[in-house]
Amino acid sequence: MGKYVFGVDVGGTTVKIGLFNKDGNVLEKWEIPTRTEDKGAHVLPDIAESIQNKIAEKQLDRAEVMGIGIGVPGPVDSASVCHGAVNLGWDDVNIAKELYELTGLSSVAANDANVAALGEMWKGGGQGYSSLVAVTLGTGVGGGIVVEGKLLAGYSGSGGEIGHMHVLDEEEEACGCGNFGCLEQYSSATGVVTLAKRALKNNTKPTVLKESELTAKAVFDAAKDGDELALEVVKKFGEVLGKGLALIACVVNPEVFVIGGGVSKAGPMLFDYIRPSFEKYVFPGSLGTKFTLATLGNDAGIFGAAKLILDQAD
Amino acid sequence: MGKYVFGVDVGGTTVKIGLFNKDGNVLEKWEIPTRTEDKGAHVLPDIAESIQNKIAEKQLDRAEVMGIGIGVPGPVDSASVCHGAVNLGWDDVNIAKELYELTGLSSVAANDANVAALGEMWKGGGQGYSSLVAVTLGTGVGGGIVVEGKLLAGYSGSGGEIGHMHVLDEEEEACGCGNFGCLEQYSSATGVVTLAKRALKNNTKPTVLKESELTAKAVFDAAKDGDELALEVVKKFGEVLGKGLALIACVVNPEVFVIGGGVSKAGPMLFDYIRPSFEKYVFPGSLGTKFTLATLGNDAGIFGAAKLILDQAD
Repeated sequence: MGKYVFGVDVGGTTVKIGLFNKDGNVLEKWEIPTRTEDKGAHVLPDIAESIQNKIAEKQLDRAEVMGIGIGVPGPVDSASVCHGAVNLGWDDVNIAKELYELTGLSSVAANDANVAALGEMWKGGGQGYSSLVAVTLGTGVGGGIVVEGKLLAGYSGSGGEIGHMHVLDEEEEACGCGNFGCLEQYSSATGVVTLAKRALKNNTKPTVLKESELTAKAVFDAAKDGDELALEVVKKFGEVLGKGLALIACVVNPEVFVIGGGVSKAGPMLFDYIRPSFEKYVFPGSLGTKFTLATLGNDAGIFGAAKLILDQAD
Repeated sequence: MGKYVFGVDVGGTTVKIGLFNKDGNVLEKWEIPTRTEDKGAHVLPDIAESIQNKIAEKQLDRAEVMGIGIGVPGPVDSASVCHGAVNLGWDDVNIAKELYELTGLSSVAANDANVAALGEMWKGGGQGYSSLVAVTLGTGVGGGIVVEGKLLAGYSGSGGEIGHMHVLDEEEEACGCGNFGCLEQYSSATGVVTLAKRALKNNTKPTVLKESELTAKAVFDAAKDGDELALEVVKKFGEVLGKGLALIACVVNPEVFVIGGGVSKAGPMLFDYIRPSFEKYVFPGSLGTKFTLATLGNDAGIFGAAKLILDQAD
């Protein structure tokens, strides 16, 4: 077993890279831009070059580098093949094979939300649990499912696509995926703003919320201050999300939900709004499911990516 | 590795037992009654006695018996502990430990629907797939999830409790679990009859369906003959089930759904009614999910139970 691992988290604008020792301590982390031109053809070569440079700069013994773990924003199957990533311009890409050819280092890839789940289990809010669902409430809603310590990638890499579970029949606006009534239409940062805009439309109550400066943070802050309209919005948010998480619990029955992403900065108050709805809809055998907050923030991806390699070496 | 395995499927009225060789051929199968009195205290001793008798009768070398796999109607965690089984009168029962103490044979237990899924994967409709969800449309709706060849038991044994996913907001009657709008209220044999009764209530069309002799089979038969009301019922059944399966696919993204249970005797016509709704609601990355019929019928449980032991020996 070597001493070092690289963990890479590829986003639509930047790539985060971390150099870890095998105990999971970050020795160094940095970012490079994501070049999406030419159908994303530069993304992996840029990463490979950056890692090669780091190995040279730190004078690392290549034999001591265990490999490169990488999370990407698209479905990735258990053979590390990505089946399209819109934000990178990718069609099918065999990530492990390409990175190996570029660097000579063993590589493992997975979906970014799944990798973040692994990171939170290893070093974040999910420490001590081996069966969890990580829910990232950001621009969209991402999910990562860990069963008995292992990522559930899904047959074609679409495991944990919980942002696109259908939760509301009456929706008339389409989700980014083309369907109607997806969880992320209400539970992402964008979704909270949509709910607030709708609430404001026919509102007659006094409220500090103004359409011009509407953000998820503003809504939760106003709710904490007792703003009635904001409280209505947060209640609706919690109802829909609680229902979605109840559906997930009926399928995989995790020990804990680890809630992260920008919206989770609202803190433990989230659970006060999610839990009543969760309990209303969930199968009684899963009533004991716990809720906790993610703690790694934007670093969850590089941690989880590093763990992909360490798990392979086990 | 030994030569023989026992597979046991415990139901509320009878226990099915199969003696298998390690290639999965049934050497003999039989049934004993399920004695649920005294809080089900006789269930495991009766099974143990029946197996001991069979070993004696067939003059099997005990060293050649690899163990006893057993499926029970309740949540079972991955340590073979059952957390209550209403139909057997059980509270918490450490099945593997008790059966071992009674027989001296290694034992592994799992939930009956999960075990049936494993059986269908091994020798039934799911052969050749390693990532599947088995859906049993019987008196209730059961589910069993297999991920990369392994059962997903769930943290407290409630993995695959898909019959209790919330799929309809407008339901006013309670499900057996106490919640409202569970999948099994519409997609089980009982559920199809409920849907038919509701359709008959305000019906003015001519129909061969009569409330007094309503069964799921009668409804599907009438639909095949073009009965308009029956077709309406089957359409509603397919809509709700397709939606439920789409939700499952967003979570675990299986390669195939294997549909079994009494209702599945309607045959491939089921898929014509399930698929349009599935495609409407599912995340586009899972549109390729396949559908197939279960083939083992009531024997799926004993096959899957035997496989539990063989998997352990791998």
